[in-house]
Amino acid sequence: MPAFLQIPEELAPVQQMLGAGLARVQRRFDEQLASDLLPVERLCRHVEHYRGKMLRPMLVMLSGLACGDREISEEHVTIAAVCEMVHMATLVHDDVLDEAENRRRGRTVNHLYGNEAAVILGDYLIAGAYHLCTSLDSVEAARRIGEVSMVLCAGELLQLHFRDDYSLDEATYFEILERKTAALIGVACRLGAALAGARPALCEAMEAFGRRLGVAFQIQDDLLDLTGEEAVVGKSVGKDLEKGKLTLPVLIRLADLAPAERGRFLALLEGASAAGEEARAAAGRLRRELESSGAIARATERAAGLVAEARAHLGALPAGPARDMLDLMARAVVDRRS
Amino acid sequence: MPAFLQIPEELAPVQQMLGAGLARVQRRFDEQLASDLLPVERLCRHVEHYRGKMLRPMLVMLSGLACGDREISEEHVTIAAVCEMVHMATLVHDDVLDEAENRRRGRTVNHLYGNEAAVILGDYLIAGAYHLCTSLDSVEAARRIGEVSMVLCAGELLQLHFRDDYSLDEATYFEILERKTAALIGVACRLGAALAGARPALCEAMEAFGRRLGVAFQIQDDLLDLTGEEAVVGKSVGKDLEKGKLTLPVLIRLADLAPAERGRFLALLEGASAAGEEARAAAGRLRRELESSGAIARATERAAGLVAEARAHLGALPAGPARDMLDLMARAVVDRRS
Repeated sequence: MPAFLQIPEELAPVQQMLGAGLARVQRRFDEQLASDLLPVERLCRHVEHYRGKMLRPMLVMLSGLACGDREISEEHVTIAAVCEMVHMATLVHDDVLDEAENRRRGRTVNHLYGNEAAVILGDYLIAGAYHLCTSLDSVEAARRIGEVSMVLCAGELLQLHFRDDYSLDEATYFEILERKTAALIGVACRLGAALAGARPALCEAMEAFGRRLGVAFQIQDDLLDLTGEEAVVGKSVGKDLEKGKLTLPVLIRLADLAPAERGRFLALLEGASAAGEEARAAAGRLRRELESSGAIARATERAAGLVAEARAHLGALPAGPARDMLDLMARAVVDRRS
Repeated sequence: MPAFLQIPEELAPVQQMLGAGLARVQRRFDEQLASDLLPVERLCRHVEHYRGKMLRPMLVMLSGLACGDREISEEHVTIAAVCEMVHMATLVHDDVLDEAENRRRGRTVNHLYGNEAAVILGDYLIAGAYHLCTSLDSVEAARRIGEVSMVLCAGELLQLHFRDDYSLDEATYFEILERKTAALIGVACRLGAALAGARPALCEAMEAFGRRLGVAFQIQDDLLDLTGEEAVVGKSVGKDLEKGKLTLPVLIRLADLAPAERGRFLALLEGASAAGEEARAAAGRLRRELESSGAIARATERAAGLVAEARAHLGALPAGPARDMLDLMARAVVDRRS
């Protein structure tokens, strides 16, 4: 179970069930990627180091349990592994794009084996996810996974398009988050519900829960990249500034500034996106300004507001430990430190 | 229709049918990738320049017609577009890996928009292919496409593993070709047959036809990279030598050389993989040696032998213009100049 969750005693049984479910997800994941070729095996074994919070698999399984399933079905394990595989593929490719060296306290694939291997490994993971999807009887899951993967890529392209572009507005920032992060988390919750036979309105509510949670999660991720320490976060930090990716606190600050002040602030941003000692100093000044002006606090509030919206959707579920666990996870998103 | 085919008059009707089918494939392709986001649209429009011979779509449709379909069905158009999309994704990612600047007489995506955009665009194409797959009623096509995509990536990883590795043997070279090229072409032919309701033995024969043809096609591709001129081939040439990719003529020559001669030849190979004027001179000497020693002629013969094997599998089909067209395409593979 993720370190950021403090589990109350009454949720111990569902926590245990979830732990056993996650072990099955990991097995399905490994079996699906197994290869008779040694160079492929070696890379896939490396991907194990990328495993983090397993947020998406947990949401798939908990959504099923919360919608009435008494145990975690084989289909839930499959879709949980699929969602994690799609997510992992984006991590592997993101690390190539970001030229990141560390991920989850290990070296990135691109850093160890080169960009080429990382690009193909990401493709292998995507292919593995789709192939695994088709082992289910129903075509709905595969259709939604295919669709959401397109949405996810479109979000990444939109983000790339606005790199170094200081005209990015909040609406577009949220559009990017909705697509690149929230959509897949929403589908994870929806499919978890759908595979448990939930009625359409409940599937909708669960997807809405996941989407709100996903946006909050990404805001928090961006905040950790800005303010976190590498040793705690477990991956390279400060990458967003370096790569010219504008995040919520920066947008909030920009919107607040008088026209006469914007020039100075943009120059600071520009300075923080270079390399070397001077850029690190500029990044430090920028962080302090975002802190002291309250921009970071306001971004954190926005995330908390989204979590509250997400939790409201859980009202559509019958009361029970799985619903309580989802609620707990939602609250933990804005408190996490990694 | 591709420039490398000389179509006899009696095949004009099937050629016309195929031309109309290809137009439908292109429409399905474009519709599937259409996006409300301008940066996505722009990149997808650029992919149109990548369109080449449309070998895989033609094989899907012709396999259907050869197995008894009287016209090209919607399902064939869909799978034809899917196969082309998977193929196009590998081209976009290959160009990133190869740092290629030109493809099909246009600039590559990575060259124009950067590696990041090219990596994500490739992912978008793969996602589009899988999503399109799930629009079919049967799950078989999606399953085979997912499976073959994994095989394809594994082949690319194997190839990457043996880059600059002069211990690569012929068996492994063929293993790479089988996976990275032949498998998808085989599945294109199999699904074309299966969607036309062909019996399992015929589906098998069509897949075997496609696989033999695919290996021959890749040998010819490698030969064109070695001996072709950029203006004729339509993409950057000489890339295999530069990137340390051993191809069949080189392997044939290596196997022929006495141990005392190998050192000299390997040094020449090494020299050709560097950059600059000297490397070009080394590549020229290498080409002349492969030519004069007969290694290129023998590689060409191997491709011709595979084409003959492929054509033999067409004997499983009823006689008719679609079968004749498949036969014509198979023969054209080793004669092509681009």
